[in-house]
Amino acid sequence: MRAASSPPLNDVNRQWLLVNRPSGWPKESDFKLVETAPPEPGNGEILVRILWVSVDPYMRGRMRDVKSYAPPVPLNGVMEGGAVARVMASSHPKFAVGDIVEGRFGWQDFAVSDGKGVRKVDSTLAPISTALGVLGMPGLTAYFGLLDICRPKAGETVLVSGAAGAVGSLVGQIAKIKGARAVGIAGSEDKVRWLTDELGFDAAFNYKTVPNYGAKIAELCPNGVDCYFDNVGGEITDSVFPHLNPRGRVSVCGQIAQYNAEKPESGPRLLWHFVRLQLKVEGFLVFQFAERYNEGLNQLSKWLAEEKLKYRETVIEGLEHTPAAFLGMMRGENIGKQLVHVADA
Amino acid sequence: MRAASSPPLNDVNRQWLLVNRPSGWPKESDFKLVETAPPEPGNGEILVRILWVSVDPYMRGRMRDVKSYAPPVPLNGVMEGGAVARVMASSHPKFAVGDIVEGRFGWQDFAVSDGKGVRKVDSTLAPISTALGVLGMPGLTAYFGLLDICRPKAGETVLVSGAAGAVGSLVGQIAKIKGARAVGIAGSEDKVRWLTDELGFDAAFNYKTVPNYGAKIAELCPNGVDCYFDNVGGEITDSVFPHLNPRGRVSVCGQIAQYNAEKPESGPRLLWHFVRLQLKVEGFLVFQFAERYNEGLNQLSKWLAEEKLKYRETVIEGLEHTPAAFLGMMRGENIGKQLVHVADA
Repeated sequence: MRAASSPPLNDVNRQWLLVNRPSGWPKESDFKLVETAPPEPGNGEILVRILWVSVDPYMRGRMRDVKSYAPPVPLNGVMEGGAVARVMASSHPKFAVGDIVEGRFGWQDFAVSDGKGVRKVDSTLAPISTALGVLGMPGLTAYFGLLDICRPKAGETVLVSGAAGAVGSLVGQIAKIKGARAVGIAGSEDKVRWLTDELGFDAAFNYKTVPNYGAKIAELCPNGVDCYFDNVGGEITDSVFPHLNPRGRVSVCGQIAQYNAEKPESGPRLLWHFVRLQLKVEGFLVFQFAERYNEGLNQLSKWLAEEKLKYRETVIEGLEHTPAAFLGMMRGENIGKQLVHVADA
Repeated sequence: MRAASSPPLNDVNRQWLLVNRPSGWPKESDFKLVETAPPEPGNGEILVRILWVSVDPYMRGRMRDVKSYAPPVPLNGVMEGGAVARVMASSHPKFAVGDIVEGRFGWQDFAVSDGKGVRKVDSTLAPISTALGVLGMPGLTAYFGLLDICRPKAGETVLVSGAAGAVGSLVGQIAKIKGARAVGIAGSEDKVRWLTDELGFDAAFNYKTVPNYGAKIAELCPNGVDCYFDNVGGEITDSVFPHLNPRGRVSVCGQIAQYNAEKPESGPRLLWHFVRLQLKVEGFLVFQFAERYNEGLNQLSKWLAEEKLKYRETVIEGLEHTPAAFLGMMRGENIGKQLVHVADA
């Protein structure tokens, strides 16, 4: 998967700036790679060397200059994002030189931080890149979004869209751990095979080749859908609602099918289903569970050690390819977690 | 309001049959009034003389031959519905001749029942017609739908659509009892005045004369909307979602704007708001709270006795006008609870 690389260990900080607010699908030219001097850590701060950069769907929202749950990336600002890094200098009591840490360091080689939102990564537990996947934000998103919002019971059917992504692939596996039936919707035959043959999903289908989603859902979920974990929105989600069971629960995690729409899209009105089926439909942001992150990470680590959870990474080599990695992920080219490898530990 | 009437106390049972499944708006010709002999109660059954018939939005769904939470009224069957009645004959241990009862007796003069779903009405508590309104299904719908699903806190803003209807008018008042700010959306100046001048809503607007619902909601809810109790759906509801506050709660009670649509309508996709605002949106049917009806009725009776709840009835005189009453209610011609007075107690 990933080629060996010799990381640029010089004293240049390459940074990806957002230089244009995309309308519709972002283009590589919306980003610009600049070289600056590495930042100097102040008192109580750390300097980190970034090793892995995460690209995630939510970043599309940060490129938009609209009021949302988080402020947008400023124009000509460094693109935001989670990263795994090595501490190069520290006058922060919690962090020592050599520590591997995870934080919102952005699309660049070096960053300074006051330590807020930064956590140490235990490299004996699993490869450090998992701090951006199964043992990081995507893992916590799957864990809380499924267990706290959908609350699947043994024997129930859990349907997941975006099922072969970083979050969706874990949702189905956690559903299985809880004794539920897991069905996935994904965007290629390879993904479908991975879900059913390797991850233990009971069924999955490729929405790019299935002409009638509703009929396929009815076929693969003969007892209806009790829990729907939605990563995508749009027509896939429209087709799920009629197949929900009474008292069904929907966890709305993402709506990636909408993120590049130039203007708000229309679709069938869904709220009557809410009434007739007594549905509980809840949108969430993983941050709302921040006080329980340790619980989630402990459980995910335990399942990983027990080999009850499997994960996969799609790695692009080199910080210079970060926009390409982001765009590929938005197009669904990744299987599992999309990462950018920037430098070796 | 209602004229005096001499009830037909003969032995003819007039019944309104559903003779055509309406497409789009129902017409009076979809119903047919027939005269039959009153039914004979069997062993363990009661015979009742119907005094008040309720017409409610959910009945539109029962006219449709589609799978829903309740089976449709059969073609040429008696239209279903709640009614208040007097027991004329009884071999049921729980009911005596002369008792006033409420049950699903339908659009007719007489009915027999095995007593299932029938409850005695305490005529000393309030006028017996309230068993179809504030002390009946609409009251319970407002009580549980607001308090269990929206869970408004003191100081929060509760917005209600269909605010001058049987349910909506109570939702706003219960919100006020709980210390919240109540804002209503209704369909006439008279309704708006009733809400603000008599029921104590903090604000209300007439959607028929306001050109931009969203701007009006922003004006009347300067701190945003924490709880939205939705009776109507459609464009009104579309305009509410962008004004919900983070962690807002939506109780989806009805979607009357959709009930006469000939084919499913489209509208703006709403699910992204669920994510960005971490919304909890729940549809419900009052039956799901059946085990707690006594709690609800006791509290509603107490508030009514304390004059914390006011109610209003729009009464049409004569069983022969039941379809007209139903259609008028669907068009929003009622203020408060729409009833048909069939006979005096």
